[in-house]
Amino acid sequence: MSKLLYEGKAKKLFATKDKYVLRQVFKDDATAFNALKKSQFSGKGQLNCAISTALFAVVEKAGVKTHLIEQTGPIEMLVRKVEIVKLEVIVRFKVAGSLQKRTGLPEGYEAKPPVVEFCYKDDALGDPIFNDDHIRLLKVAKPAEVEKIRGMAIAAAVALRKHFKKNKIELVDIKFEFGRDAKTGKILLADEISPDTMRVWSASGEKLDKDRFRFDLGDLVEGYRKVANALGVK
Amino acid sequence: MSKLLYEGKAKKLFATKDKYVLRQVFKDDATAFNALKKSQFSGKGQLNCAISTALFAVVEKAGVKTHLIEQTGPIEMLVRKVEIVKLEVIVRFKVAGSLQKRTGLPEGYEAKPPVVEFCYKDDALGDPIFNDDHIRLLKVAKPAEVEKIRGMAIAAAVALRKHFKKNKIELVDIKFEFGRDAKTGKILLADEISPDTMRVWSASGEKLDKDRFRFDLGDLVEGYRKVANALGVK
Repeated sequence: MSKLLYEGKAKKLFATKDKYVLRQVFKDDATAFNALKKSQFSGKGQLNCAISTALFAVVEKAGVKTHLIEQTGPIEMLVRKVEIVKLEVIVRFKVAGSLQKRTGLPEGYEAKPPVVEFCYKDDALGDPIFNDDHIRLLKVAKPAEVEKIRGMAIAAAVALRKHFKKNKIELVDIKFEFGRDAKTGKILLADEISPDTMRVWSASGEKLDKDRFRFDLGDLVEGYRKVANALGVK
Repeated sequence: MSKLLYEGKAKKLFATKDKYVLRQVFKDDATAFNALKKSQFSGKGQLNCAISTALFAVVEKAGVKTHLIEQTGPIEMLVRKVEIVKLEVIVRFKVAGSLQKRTGLPEGYEAKPPVVEFCYKDDALGDPIFNDDHIRLLKVAKPAEVEKIRGMAIAAAVALRKHFKKNKIELVDIKFEFGRDAKTGKILLADEISPDTMRVWSASGEKLDKDRFRFDLGDLVEGYRKVANALGVK
């Protein structure tokens, strides 16, 4: 048994024999509203692992380096060890969720070019939105890293949106996390890319993502399975 | 009697014979927490009018153009008519208030260089913080205007901080509003510059600004009078 290094809301990270490589295991747990709402969904971990593997490949093809090495089981993958940058980077193509509240614009309003937001990863503070000055004040990342991350996030989101569109799904917004490669220091797209971390709507407007859980809109796993099916992910 | 064009929480604006010039009259009303807390303070309008006149002169001397033409009475001044840019521009030299909540840093923590924040002036939305992408999405101001405003805000704040320091007062943070000159379209520093729109602490740490009212820290007008006295404003 390898050593558990970290347990988050939706994933666990274990050490491997290679100090630069970790095993990332997907859980069936779901949380929302800063973990005020929690539940378990049998099959979610497996779907998110498969969808993440497929979508990491899409962004790699678009030139964005990720932490993924390879999927090694139904709910696990080998990933490069990174030091996580304490930022949630959100790219928004349409208005929904907190952007709707912040701006008063209607849900679905087109953001062209996309809106990028940085939130500070800190549960105790409630993941507050940060501007570049806040990031600098707390030394969360260097200005050059922030620009690198912004560029990678937009490139990844645009590639994913295109990929989803080809498969008749609308990518509304997406949250990324980045890390510094433990070996090289380079910025890599880390974490996962799944319906837990994005909003995706079907052609008929059905919500296929974690909003189903947040707002009790229907069976969570059924939505995630529709995403997997549309993408041809098994 | 001239026509009332606008009544805000702390000031009224009247038309004059010159369509490019308004009469700005200071009220004794104070509001806080998005107007959830309200009161009246006899003498506040007069103090804020005098302090604003003195401080507009300080920033003009530092090269920042303002809407002030001249003070014309104890509670009134003539100002250039502007179209207000719907942004509150906050420059912060030390952590206090919402920046303390957002970052978890202690009150008084030095922000070096200063932190600049933009909030969208919209009471119904609760004046939410905006990044450059939100400003663009809502077409609040053009990117070149935002950069102009950021530069003017920092220049004005730095000049004011220096002026206060000479007079043994610490400028902690300050909120500015800007407008487009109705005649020329040029960006001008508008609104007021008073203890209603800044945090100022005495050498002994006494709060001399609207936090006295927000948190019941002592007589409001007494604090404002101390600021006026320290600055030599009559």
